[in-house]
Amino acid sequence: MFNDWQNLIDEMKAGSERALARLISRVENRAPGWLEAMKILHNMSGKAQVVGITGAPGAGKSTLTDKLTRELVTRGYTIGVIAVDPSSPFSGGALLGDRLRMTKVCSIEGVFVRSMATRGALGGLSLAARDVVKIMDAAGKDIILIETVGVGQDEIDVVKTADNVMVICVPGMGDGIQAIKAGIMEIASIFVVNKADREGANRTAAEIQMMLTMTSNPSDKKIPILKTIASTGEGVTELIDVLLEDLESEGGKKNWQEERAREEIFTLLEKEVARYVRGRWDEKGEMDNTVKQVIARERDPYSVVEEMLESLIADNK
Amino acid sequence: MFNDWQNLIDEMKAGSERALARLISRVENRAPGWLEAMKILHNMSGKAQVVGITGAPGAGKSTLTDKLTRELVTRGYTIGVIAVDPSSPFSGGALLGDRLRMTKVCSIEGVFVRSMATRGALGGLSLAARDVVKIMDAAGKDIILIETVGVGQDEIDVVKTADNVMVICVPGMGDGIQAIKAGIMEIASIFVVNKADREGANRTAAEIQMMLTMTSNPSDKKIPILKTIASTGEGVTELIDVLLEDLESEGGKKNWQEERAREEIFTLLEKEVARYVRGRWDEKGEMDNTVKQVIARERDPYSVVEEMLESLIADNK
Repeated sequence: MFNDWQNLIDEMKAGSERALARLISRVENRAPGWLEAMKILHNMSGKAQVVGITGAPGAGKSTLTDKLTRELVTRGYTIGVIAVDPSSPFSGGALLGDRLRMTKVCSIEGVFVRSMATRGALGGLSLAARDVVKIMDAAGKDIILIETVGVGQDEIDVVKTADNVMVICVPGMGDGIQAIKAGIMEIASIFVVNKADREGANRTAAEIQMMLTMTSNPSDKKIPILKTIASTGEGVTELIDVLLEDLESEGGKKNWQEERAREEIFTLLEKEVARYVRGRWDEKGEMDNTVKQVIARERDPYSVVEEMLESLIADNK
Repeated sequence: MFNDWQNLIDEMKAGSERALARLISRVENRAPGWLEAMKILHNMSGKAQVVGITGAPGAGKSTLTDKLTRELVTRGYTIGVIAVDPSSPFSGGALLGDRLRMTKVCSIEGVFVRSMATRGALGGLSLAARDVVKIMDAAGKDIILIETVGVGQDEIDVVKTADNVMVICVPGMGDGIQAIKAGIMEIASIFVVNKADREGANRTAAEIQMMLTMTSNPSDKKIPILKTIASTGEGVTELIDVLLEDLESEGGKKNWQEERAREEIFTLLEKEVARYVRGRWDEKGEMDNTVKQVIARERDPYSVVEEMLESLIADNK
C-alpha cells in the first residue's frame, strides 16, 4: 500500500502532473496511508509562495487569476491554481466560462489547476485546501494562487492560509460589498479595484483608502490599492510587480507562519479526535437510540457529549 | 453560580426579555455553568418552528423578514428573529438601515430580535445559532426566523438547523446567483422571487422551476415558488399561508430531526474534545516549540496530531 504512495510521490517529483493530480485526489478522499504520505509531503514543502485571491461574486476573480497566471509563467514561475468553486447548479453559464478559461491556462507548461468543491471536503474546506497547497508546494510549484469567493467563514479560513491576500473589489459594488466581511479586511495585503474602466472606480479606491486609514495604525505596513481591467489585462503587470515585492519583503510570510502552523495542528487535531470518538461511538451502536432520546427530550445533547468525553479520557487523568 | 442561571431561566419563563437576552449572551460567551444551563433549556425546548431565510446579498432578506414578522405577530404568533450579520465595516449604510428596521420590529410585543456576529462564535457559527434557537424556543417563541446570507459553508450550516428554508432570489441576479450554492438548493422548502416588480421576475421563476424539475424526482414534495415585493408587502400574506401549511404538514420537521440531532451531538463533541485536548497541550507548554519545529520541517503536523491523540487515549484501549 505505502509503496504505491511513495511511487506517486517519486513520479510527482519527477514532474508528472498525473501523479500530482492523483496524490491530491487520494489525500482528499483520505485513502488509506494518506497521513503517512502527508508526513513526507510536509517535509518536502515550505518553498512555495501562496497568494489568496478573494472578493464578492462577479468581481472578476477568475479572469484576474487567469491573467496573473499567464504573466507569472512568462516571468519564469511555475504556478499552481486552486479554484474554490461555488458549485451552484444555477451558475452553469458563468462557471462554465470560468472552467473553459481555466482549462486553457491548465494546458500551459508549468501550470497546474485544481478545482475544489466547497462542500463535503473531509475535515473541512480550509484543511483540505491546506493539503492541496502543501502537495503543489512539494511538487515544486513556485507560486500557488487560491481563488475563492470572499464570503463565508470557511472561505475566509481558506485565504488565511495564504502569504499574501488580494481582495478584489469593483466600482459601485453596493450590496455586494456588504458580503465582504470584517475578517477579510484584516488579512488583505493588496486591494485591487477591478473593472476600473467602470464609472466610480476612483471613488471606490478612495473609499477603500479611507477605510484603511480609519482602521490602521500609522506604524502599520501600507496596503497598496491598485486598479486593473482584468478582461484586457490592463494593470496586471503593475499588480504583479507589487505582489512579488510584497512576497519578497520579510514581513509577508513570517508574520503569519506561527499562527498558521498552530491553527493547522489544532484543526487537524479537532477532526482526527472527532473522527476517532465518532467511530468508537458508532461501533457501540448506541447512537440511533441516543438521537431518539435527545429528540424526545429524555436526554440532552450536552450530557451525551460529556459522557462521550468522559469515557474517552476515563483512565487517562 | 448556578442559582444565578436558574434565576435567569425562571425570569425568562415569566416573560422577561432582559433575562432572555442575558441568557443568550452568557451561553455565547461560555460563561461558567453554561453547559448545565443548556441541559435545562434543551428540555424546555422543542416546540418552536424554525424558519431559515437565505439568499444572495441584496435580495431583500431583511425587509422580507421584517414584513413576515409583523404579519405573523398579527396572526397571533410570538416571534424570535436571529440576524446573522455580515458585519462588514464597508456596509455601514445598508446595515444601519437594516438595524433600524429591526429595532422597530424589536419593539413590537412578542418579538425578540438578536443579531449574531459571524466571526468569533465560540464553537462555530452553526452551533452558536443552534444555542440561540434553543433558548428562544425555551422562552416560548412560536416561530423563530433566522436570516442569513446564502453564501459560505458556515452560513449554510446555520440554515440547515431550520425546519423550513426560504431561499430568496431577485430577478436578473446574474453573478449574485453564482454565490448560492448547490447545498442551499437541496434544503430549500420554498423559493421566493422578491422584488417581483422588476423586469425578468417571471423568467427567474421559470428558471428556478426548470432547475427544480431537473434535480428532483417525480415523487418528491413539490417546492413552491412565490413572488413578493417585500418593500410594499405584496405577496407576503400568500407566502405566510404557504409557510404555515408547510410547517404544519408532517413532512417538514420530522425528516430533518434525527439528522440534525446527530449533527448537533457530533459538532458539540468535536468542539469539546478539541477544547479539552488543546487545553491539556497548552498546559504542558510544549506548543510553542512544536510549532517552531513544524515550520522548520523538523517535525510534521500529522505526526504531532497522532501523538496528541495517542496520549489522549493511551490507557483507554
